[in-house]
Amino acid sequence: MRQIGVEELRDIATGAALMGAGGGGNPEVGKLMAIAAVREHGPVSLLDPSEVPDDFLVTSPSGIGAPAVGLEKFPNGSEFELMMNKLREILGRDVDAVFPIEAGGINSMIPFIVGAKLGLPVVDADGMGRAFPELQMSTLALAGHRICPLILADEKGNLVQIDVDSPHDAEKFARAVTVEMGATSQSVSDTTTGDALRNDGVLGIITKCQKIGHLIRHLGDYPTPASALAALLDVTNGQRMFTAKITDIKHVTKSGFNFGTVLFSGIDGDSGRMGQLEFQNENIVFSVSGTVVATAPDLITLIDTETLDPVTNEELRYGKRVHVLGLPADDKWRTPAGIECVGPRYFKYDIDYQPVEELVAEAQKKGVID
Amino acid sequence: MRQIGVEELRDIATGAALMGAGGGGNPEVGKLMAIAAVREHGPVSLLDPSEVPDDFLVTSPSGIGAPAVGLEKFPNGSEFELMMNKLREILGRDVDAVFPIEAGGINSMIPFIVGAKLGLPVVDADGMGRAFPELQMSTLALAGHRICPLILADEKGNLVQIDVDSPHDAEKFARAVTVEMGATSQSVSDTTTGDALRNDGVLGIITKCQKIGHLIRHLGDYPTPASALAALLDVTNGQRMFTAKITDIKHVTKSGFNFGTVLFSGIDGDSGRMGQLEFQNENIVFSVSGTVVATAPDLITLIDTETLDPVTNEELRYGKRVHVLGLPADDKWRTPAGIECVGPRYFKYDIDYQPVEELVAEAQKKGVID
Repeated sequence: MRQIGVEELRDIATGAALMGAGGGGNPEVGKLMAIAAVREHGPVSLLDPSEVPDDFLVTSPSGIGAPAVGLEKFPNGSEFELMMNKLREILGRDVDAVFPIEAGGINSMIPFIVGAKLGLPVVDADGMGRAFPELQMSTLALAGHRICPLILADEKGNLVQIDVDSPHDAEKFARAVTVEMGATSQSVSDTTTGDALRNDGVLGIITKCQKIGHLIRHLGDYPTPASALAALLDVTNGQRMFTAKITDIKHVTKSGFNFGTVLFSGIDGDSGRMGQLEFQNENIVFSVSGTVVATAPDLITLIDTETLDPVTNEELRYGKRVHVLGLPADDKWRTPAGIECVGPRYFKYDIDYQPVEELVAEAQKKGVID
Repeated sequence: MRQIGVEELRDIATGAALMGAGGGGNPEVGKLMAIAAVREHGPVSLLDPSEVPDDFLVTSPSGIGAPAVGLEKFPNGSEFELMMNKLREILGRDVDAVFPIEAGGINSMIPFIVGAKLGLPVVDADGMGRAFPELQMSTLALAGHRICPLILADEKGNLVQIDVDSPHDAEKFARAVTVEMGATSQSVSDTTTGDALRNDGVLGIITKCQKIGHLIRHLGDYPTPASALAALLDVTNGQRMFTAKITDIKHVTKSGFNFGTVLFSGIDGDSGRMGQLEFQNENIVFSVSGTVVATAPDLITLIDTETLDPVTNEELRYGKRVHVLGLPADDKWRTPAGIECVGPRYFKYDIDYQPVEELVAEAQKKGVID
């Protein structure tokens, strides 16, 4: 167990935005809310999964919906108290800890806000090891754990409680309610045991995010940007796939999701090549000159070439210079069931999944990328 | 208190279909389900509102959604047991009785199905005195009573629980969830006290429906169809506005509602005149030769010219000969607040509400109708 205070939150938020793979919301908003909560209530205990008793009850508070809307309409915090009270009524007892359902600018921070307010520890594990757009896309649901009881709230204090077995049905109802709540809602879901989270979650994700954020914040300690990038790729086990300038962004918010396409013009070693990225809240497919270089569930994430700061999809701007990184997904996603759940075909792309490290090696061999 | 068995249910279902004002679902489906429940479990006690103790807890089980879909996808009954169990958890006790939220082929029958299965009496009162398409359109909500806790279920046993203060928000979330449930859902809502139901409900509606149904079933006892119609108008306090043949039906199911327009060509005394009916689940505006003759909240209801059987909107057929009746709404609807809630302007018609008896008298005077 260690304490998470203001400095740690800053780094976790930055790292989570990178691991959010384009989605997960703006890290500034989540960070400021979490820092305010910790300033008011004091630091939050972070439990290593190995420290969590088997019979602990853990739950995940998070935000649902289009991150672009979340920017203007973020939670006021009292929604979570309402929902946690409702969860207590359902369970007949309090939960022992909270955990993030995904890595992302907003959803990595919400457990710390709730933890600070309610005096609950946060477990260093999540249900995705990255961000994904839909509720059933968690390693916990994949392993057969229930998402429900799923409680949704809006900023008016409206509560909707969903109790269904199928993770896809949970997603379907939550999405419909979220649209009516104005395209974003707050939620509490995926209540399970310490044992289940340790077996079926992605472990150590918060510590990983913190390391990433710490490295980016201490960029000046590295002799060159290239050496800092190398260190970042080492921490994330990732690859630089492409370096480019953003030349076009098509963006639409529909049914509670952000959909979009980003076009890139290569620079430096990638000069003369064109990149294309498809996203649905999170980045799903990246290709260069028509050759697919990475797909979900592997992480496609953009970072600023100067600062190495992650660039989430609501921060995309014409002319921005970015490295496009490819990071391998957690092994739990690289199974047939995982790929069926979150692979490119689920997102309606007629592409077979292949691990990013293989695709990158092939593309390099063909001279498609640098 | 009196007992409701198979014969009574037949009559109630017929009368409720008439009072459903075109909506409320097909009376055959509801009737067959209720009869099966009463055959299995025995008759259901019907309580006169005056017999209901002030502190009785009463609730309303019903169906939500487009009646045209309800025809193919009607409840299997176990949804209501699931929902009543959930309601017990919320309230910490059982309810003492159930009541229909509206008069209509399906929703007048569901309380008898639930009453028979769970051994609960039904109160002879509803929340509309007719059918209406949206949840907030009840005299109970109009009087300030909460619709929530509102529990929704589908035939898969999926449960969604809505807990919001605003009746319009309850409707909004329920509609979104109902659409995802496949355009119909089952619900339990409007839990209140015996006292509140007696003060703010529409009293005696079931007995009224039974009288109407009894009269129609005993049509042969009247010397002529005209004298039976006169008796029916006497029981309902209604008027025959138009007699016609259906010449066109436009019909679309959208966002969990049935929308439509029906065109009529007058026959008998109305020969040579054209009628037009607009509906949104229920009939909303009826006009003849461009003159409005009746609008919601007054009831516009069609009956077969031969059998006097009510013709609900999913039974509309080209060539069918009908009387178009106009029945005054309950006085609770004829207030400024009632008219704002369910008058023609709420349904997007640029028409001021005027009581049907006045509109009919004016139209007769102008020679627009017979």
